[in-house]
Amino acid sequence: MASQYETNAAGRKVPTEVNGKAQVPFRGVGKYRPEGRKAAPPIRSCADYPADGDKRVGSIREALEKCGLRDGMTISNHHHFRNGDLVMNQVFDAAKEIGARDLMWFPSASFPCHAPLIDRLEDGTIHHIEGSMNGPLGDYASLGKMRGLGVLRSHGGRWQAIQDGEVPIDIAIIAAPTADAFGNATGDRGPSACGLLGFALADSMYADKVIVVTDNLVEFPCVPWQINGQNVDYVVELDKVGDPEKIVSGTTRITKSPDRLRIADLTARFVEAAGILQDGWSFQAGAGGTALAFAIYVRDLMRKKDIKARFIRGGSTQYLVEMLEEGLTDFILDGQTFDLEGVRSMRENAGHLNTSPFTSYNYHGKGNFASMVDAVVLGATEVDLNFNANVVTHSDGRLLHGIGGWQNCLFSRCTILPIPAMRDRVPVIVDEVTTLVGPGELIDVIVTEYGISINPMRRDLIDRVKGTGLPLVPLEQVKAEVERLIGGKPQPPRVTEKDIAAIKWVDGTVIDVVKQVE
Amino acid sequence: MASQYETNAAGRKVPTEVNGKAQVPFRGVGKYRPEGRKAAPPIRSCADYPADGDKRVGSIREALEKCGLRDGMTISNHHHFRNGDLVMNQVFDAAKEIGARDLMWFPSASFPCHAPLIDRLEDGTIHHIEGSMNGPLGDYASLGKMRGLGVLRSHGGRWQAIQDGEVPIDIAIIAAPTADAFGNATGDRGPSACGLLGFALADSMYADKVIVVTDNLVEFPCVPWQINGQNVDYVVELDKVGDPEKIVSGTTRITKSPDRLRIADLTARFVEAAGILQDGWSFQAGAGGTALAFAIYVRDLMRKKDIKARFIRGGSTQYLVEMLEEGLTDFILDGQTFDLEGVRSMRENAGHLNTSPFTSYNYHGKGNFASMVDAVVLGATEVDLNFNANVVTHSDGRLLHGIGGWQNCLFSRCTILPIPAMRDRVPVIVDEVTTLVGPGELIDVIVTEYGISINPMRRDLIDRVKGTGLPLVPLEQVKAEVERLIGGKPQPPRVTEKDIAAIKWVDGTVIDVVKQVE
Repeated sequence: MASQYETNAAGRKVPTEVNGKAQVPFRGVGKYRPEGRKAAPPIRSCADYPADGDKRVGSIREALEKCGLRDGMTISNHHHFRNGDLVMNQVFDAAKEIGARDLMWFPSASFPCHAPLIDRLEDGTIHHIEGSMNGPLGDYASLGKMRGLGVLRSHGGRWQAIQDGEVPIDIAIIAAPTADAFGNATGDRGPSACGLLGFALADSMYADKVIVVTDNLVEFPCVPWQINGQNVDYVVELDKVGDPEKIVSGTTRITKSPDRLRIADLTARFVEAAGILQDGWSFQAGAGGTALAFAIYVRDLMRKKDIKARFIRGGSTQYLVEMLEEGLTDFILDGQTFDLEGVRSMRENAGHLNTSPFTSYNYHGKGNFASMVDAVVLGATEVDLNFNANVVTHSDGRLLHGIGGWQNCLFSRCTILPIPAMRDRVPVIVDEVTTLVGPGELIDVIVTEYGISINPMRRDLIDRVKGTGLPLVPLEQVKAEVERLIGGKPQPPRVTEKDIAAIKWVDGTVIDVVKQVE
Repeated sequence: MASQYETNAAGRKVPTEVNGKAQVPFRGVGKYRPEGRKAAPPIRSCADYPADGDKRVGSIREALEKCGLRDGMTISNHHHFRNGDLVMNQVFDAAKEIGARDLMWFPSASFPCHAPLIDRLEDGTIHHIEGSMNGPLGDYASLGKMRGLGVLRSHGGRWQAIQDGEVPIDIAIIAAPTADAFGNATGDRGPSACGLLGFALADSMYADKVIVVTDNLVEFPCVPWQINGQNVDYVVELDKVGDPEKIVSGTTRITKSPDRLRIADLTARFVEAAGILQDGWSFQAGAGGTALAFAIYVRDLMRKKDIKARFIRGGSTQYLVEMLEEGLTDFILDGQTFDLEGVRSMRENAGHLNTSPFTSYNYHGKGNFASMVDAVVLGATEVDLNFNANVVTHSDGRLLHGIGGWQNCLFSRCTILPIPAMRDRVPVIVDEVTTLVGPGELIDVIVTEYGISINPMRRDLIDRVKGTGLPLVPLEQVKAEVERLIGGKPQPPRVTEKDIAAIKWVDGTVIDVVKQVE
């Protein structure tokens, strides 16, 4: 691979070609203007589908064969089952049986449960993966063992890539907790209920062929139809498509660390002091322990001050559901349910709304929800003094996390990163982030155990909290104190010159590249 | 216009070019296979839309100007307000003010309230109309006064034409009873509530530019969002977008004619005797007086026999809503609400589901709902002895009705036309229908005041009702008796050689053409 490189608008040297496709280097936030028209799937005819609506076939293998699986195709799936997915290993085993090779796997994310697919990468069934690689597959890629480059996209970026035709999907696999024989499918009910199927929506609309796999077949019509059967080719019944216990993310517990509780408390007090927390406001907080603690503190403030949110953006958890049911918010706009209370609420509460990366995050639409959120609370593995942040690699260079909705959320009116200033004696505030995932101009506030650091570009926020008694501290000072405590800067990652993954910005341009670790 | 003609598979001589576009003549039911890919709207960027989501502009004129309205463009709209639409006359007045000429109007249907647009046709603002022309505009076209050809499509055919790129929409106008400033919109609430906006869904997805016009702006998010703001360019506020009294169709009253009541009763008894009326069944009946009477009779039978439907396809009326609320059906799958009870139910009942021409009718999808309906009860202006039927013209040749979902519904498992054998002493059963809209092979049963005539192709149905005491009568005999009573066959329509409208089949092929009346 004699890659050509170009230095992008963020000063990062990025390849001009990835997996054989020409790339546009990142040009700055809002600077790249797409051209052309959206992707267009083939026109079908009802004459080629059963009039009685029964699209069932006997097995995953049969469905793949009927879809015309062949070498080099792209197979996609959604990750609403997270680490409880029981389908995709079977899909690639069937692909191997059929003898297909060099497939591109295009999940919305992969998890440790997909570690067996390392065998399919090794035996040539899978060529490479484009999508988040959480855990073992990320490690595998980090070591330079994958043939192609990993391509990491945000949830919105994945929609954008499908919609814009950058990633044509040959066969989409949609594991569905409930479906009918026509292919209408929902995630909010059934023994493997995972809430919603929004990550599969683009796949269902744009893929050439769509296979719904379910363990809970119901009489037509499956209601709600989060996925339209009108986009589905085949339906396969399995005993079990997902493991409900593992659908629940392990990170959905509130932190017990005193430092992190202090960070969460400071974050809540900041949104109050800055006047963001007011009647009709909106916020998004992830499912991490600190973010959850923030949500709890904010809830208490809202109760005390008799403030009601217009909407809260999920990933939903029991805490958000309680706020909805208590009347502290009109709506939860949910992109993925993080626990079973979220699943129940989506099924039962009219104010708990099913969203998709199209409605929430797609940057190549006529607007999206992300920029209308008053405050968003996110994590990061590293930040630098210009507020640039990393969420995919650790300081040792290993690629261990996906982007998720993180990049998309940065467009919120106020983006706050409540993060510890160090982790396991490794500083989090660094001279230069190992991988640039979010440009500092979109990151407004960083809250550490040392206090609140506001991006100097947000003069308005600084003015609003001045004199409120909140501990404001320049990021430089936090960095210096951590380095003094630890005894110096972190070791730079030991990496080779070989690219192992490209990091896309929300508009499809390349913002950075990840190198193989030594 | 030196049109070329070709005789299609139904034996009709149809033009091979309509409004400058090459046409495929009807090839038979299920015979034409589309090629190529769906239409693809331009890729947009959030960078070009307001981050705060506020897309409001001051007037329809301003919105049209911002959309770059120019000569020859195609302007579309939905007809959920039916004869109560207050928007489209204003749109074309604004277009005239701007000085745009030769526009193509592409409504899902037009109504007598749009009679003022005859002036816009006369002054050159509108070149021609593709879409149902109910009443005065149909009459205008029938007299050969419109410059281009009218093109009539079914609801599903309109989706197909947009989806397949046959009709690229430049600017879609979506009148919305409730919307937010971002363009999320719903029809189920607000002072002008019309139920749903399904006829506008394709327009919102495929048009280059989309304008939402509302008289009930609500705080973001407008819930439900039947139309996604992510597809909307501009939002315009008006005092009033629709007249709720006129939204209610005048045909939603049960017939009082003894003949028609008998026809409705026979139809209900037929579905019972044929074993169609059984637990878990489904049916669709329109809003005409006879169809409503059928629904009432069927409801009584279902109560008596303790039978529950799985779903009823709407147009919804108070009668269907009562059945849903009484538990006689699990679901109403609704394509348009015909009265205010339908609107209320769609808002309040979880089992009253919003559908679109995509889910229900689009023939160029991977199946649709229409072919899964056990029985459908429809009208017709004329039928012939081969069960071919007409719904758009009268026997005098005048084009006075749209196709609606009629063609799409023919794919039901049993299509029944309960119609009078004569109207105003004009026979309805004719040697040859004035305009062929539905091929006889899809029409299973015709019920007249003379009895039940089953299509000989449906041997299975004939066997099932034999010996049940139902009055079966060959269609030939009905025709002969009517002609004896009236004193002969009807006068053939007096038409010229000039084409005034093309009739599309559900797959976009041309099934017939309508001639100018003398």
